Amino acid sequence: MLDYEHNFCRTSVMKMQGVKGTRDFYPPLMAVRNFIIDGWKAASLRNGFVEYDGPIFEYLKIFQLKSGDEIAEQLFNFTDRGGRSLAIRPEITPTLARMVNQKINSLPKPIKWFSVPRLCRAERPQKGRLREFFQWNIDIIGVDDVLADAEVIYTTVDYLREVGLRHHDVQVKISSRKLLATGLTNIGVPENQLDSLYTLLDKYTKLPRETFKEELSKQISNSVIVDKIVKLMGSTAVGEACKVLGLNSDVNCVQELARLYDILGTMGISQYCDLCPSIVRGLAYYTGIVFEIYAIGRELRAIGGGGRYDNLLGDFGGPDIPATGMGMGDCVLEILLREKGLLENAPAALSLDDFVVCLDSQFMTKAVEVTARLRMAGLASGFSYKGGSLKKQLKEASSANAKRCIIIGAEYDNGELVVKDMATGKQETVSEGRFWADLESRKG
Amino acid sequence: MLDYEHNFCRTSVMKMQGVKGTRDFYPPLMAVRNFIIDGWKAASLRNGFVEYDGPIFEYLKIFQLKSGDEIAEQLFNFTDRGGRSLAIRPEITPTLARMVNQKINSLPKPIKWFSVPRLCRAERPQKGRLREFFQWNIDIIGVDDVLADAEVIYTTVDYLREVGLRHHDVQVKISSRKLLATGLTNIGVPENQLDSLYTLLDKYTKLPRETFKEELSKQISNSVIVDKIVKLMGSTAVGEACKVLGLNSDVNCVQELARLYDILGTMGISQYCDLCPSIVRGLAYYTGIVFEIYAIGRELRAIGGGGRYDNLLGDFGGPDIPATGMGMGDCVLEILLREKGLLENAPAALSLDDFVVCLDSQFMTKAVEVTARLRMAGLASGFSYKGGSLKKQLKEASSANAKRCIIIGAEYDNGELVVKDMATGKQETVSEGRFWADLESRKG
Repeated sequence: MLDYEHNFCRTSVMKMQGVKGTRDFYPPLMAVRNFIIDGWKAASLRNGFVEYDGPIFEYLKIFQLKSGDEIAEQLFNFTDRGGRSLAIRPEITPTLARMVNQKINSLPKPIKWFSVPRLCRAERPQKGRLREFFQWNIDIIGVDDVLADAEVIYTTVDYLREVGLRHHDVQVKISSRKLLATGLTNIGVPENQLDSLYTLLDKYTKLPRETFKEELSKQISNSVIVDKIVKLMGSTAVGEACKVLGLNSDVNCVQELARLYDILGTMGISQYCDLCPSIVRGLAYYTGIVFEIYAIGRELRAIGGGGRYDNLLGDFGGPDIPATGMGMGDCVLEILLREKGLLENAPAALSLDDFVVCLDSQFMTKAVEVTARLRMAGLASGFSYKGGSLKKQLKEASSANAKRCIIIGAEYDNGELVVKDMATGKQETVSEGRFWADLESRKG
Repeated sequence: MLDYEHNFCRTSVMKMQGVKGTRDFYPPLMAVRNFIIDGWKAASLRNGFVEYDGPIFEYLKIFQLKSGDEIAEQLFNFTDRGGRSLAIRPEITPTLARMVNQKINSLPKPIKWFSVPRLCRAERPQKGRLREFFQWNIDIIGVDDVLADAEVIYTTVDYLREVGLRHHDVQVKISSRKLLATGLTNIGVPENQLDSLYTLLDKYTKLPRETFKEELSKQISNSVIVDKIVKLMGSTAVGEACKVLGLNSDVNCVQELARLYDILGTMGISQYCDLCPSIVRGLAYYTGIVFEIYAIGRELRAIGGGGRYDNLLGDFGGPDIPATGMGMGDCVLEILLREKGLLENAPAALSLDDFVVCLDSQFMTKAVEVTARLRMAGLASGFSYKGGSLKKQLKEASSANAKRCIIIGAEYDNGELVVKDMATGKQETVSEGRFWADLESRKG
């Protein structure tokens, strides 16, 4: 078989790699992914959310419907053999809207759902932004009170705190689309220009100040309004922003923001939260409270964000029902957790209860039997395929983080096993009968 | 906004469905999926496998390389903006081979890995066969002894037994590609015809006997050989098959099969396992022991299957390193578990520790505070957005499977909470201070 073609084939496949912007989850990286996702799931359940998921691909049109041009460009789309236009999901919100609408009458309200979808974006990979990633999503559908927005923010902070990020590590920046809409129209921005303006405002921190102002001037010809918007984006307090926008503190949207902040205080998470009028969020569908989570003092993208989207279910053909939610990807979060040393808390990829060491090939059948019986008793167990000296096999047991070693050697001529505690190093010799009886009684 | 276009849009999106052959995992179905996948993961870890995963899409060529025409037709493929041909993975084995080959020198051997990939196939959906599904994969790479094949089968049976399927529910049918290859060439089948013959033999149980014989005659012109193959497929014992194939019991591949069966006996799972010479497996890459798992007495597809594939890593450009593994999808398994009533063991989608009942809107802030503090203490907790009577809120607590209710009502005028045990119905009134002190001491 060592002909030219075979050799050529070998060389070409040898270089075969995964696609750029995707990740190969070798066991150590898989353990990190599980640590992150298990934490998300636990925080969701602790806060009373139930899990759902949709398919990895949907009809293309479901994503085109409401997500704006920017998202539509970021899809992997394809056609199936029946000629249907399909796409891998870049976000789960359209699926959520579809699923909720399909069973709107039978689902108990409010709906408190979470999901950890695998998502794909057909864009150029950058730091903290890959072509395939996982995203934690929580949503409360059917509540228009800001209490629901507060609960979404609380659940987000609950996770961050649980994973070890403190209020001087991360910050939730909170604003309101209602405040922006009311204020911007108040200073003279036409209502039909708001959506395209939000897309630009969302880029404020990513663009050089001059470029931002130039782009802004292309959208808004009146230089007085432009100056006010620039001032708005630089403001760090709600009072300051209201002054720029000419809004009094008794305006509904200002009061709502104040009430939200009160509830967050009641919940005990004010330290994590800041009102920040320049937060806009890129997506067109937000209608009320919006927020983004940032690492403090780091030049990283937002760790996550969310807000209220009261019109989305209606736009997807369902009833007008209020909704609010949050999304957090795994990429930026992982970078931050790694930098803070918090991934060291991730459980090892493999942790055996028992490792069966066989020191004489004549006892290999016994070793296999013992391992199988331990597993049947619910204990994570292994043995060595390579065999070798006691030292070598103990090393293998250590690599597998085994708590105990069951050693089958010369003692087994008398029907005895040696049980070694790997933490203390202590070992004792017990008859096999006694060994199983002990295990039985421990189970009982 | 109620113009014609908006109405039209509403109507058309109202009908928006998921793509046929995919599933919407509403919370009850998601709980079933988690039950199945968590069981797979637990069985893998108990048996000493570590988790890995690859990307959901790969270069198309990686799937075309070794999987045969049948698999290549079943892909969702697409082109990215850089013109690369990509495809959603229909199986994870090519990814496994790529990943292992890329780090072959640094990975400790043997490699015992598992994964639960999401996979897609572009085929017509049928019962137990969808376009999107999950598949449990376990593989042992670097061991040529049948002991590894036995461990793969043991781990499979360990899961089936744990989930409640007994040896009269499911059966592992075991054969050997080596036995088939040796025997078939022995009766006169040319070696270069074996691969296409396997594909046909694999369809034996799915085709009417006459159609099978017709198809067989198209491949093999010699009617004596055809008759022998038909007899082989009907044989239910290794001795019988060997007789048809003219093989003695001292032939290496026959002995290997006998040894495997001995080890399965040592492991205590003979009752689940049958030697069954007609098992072939469709994929071209198997080289030794092969097996399939079936529901006994049911007209279902195989629940799973696997076997030895010693050449695959070499074919993917890596070294010649032996490997054996198993794959089990969630679709047929779920049908079987449902029929046997075993999904009733699946945990509920939501199980709260505490549900905070607020009977007076003036105490809502307190209810929110109590809920947040309970969550901070690690207890899964919720409250009612809808409020209403005690009866209504207790019902809501029951739906959330709450273990306790913390009731904030008239007693709170004296700073007291009512704690109700939802299992026993017992309730006691405690001061708020005492309530938190009790919680602290329980934690300590």
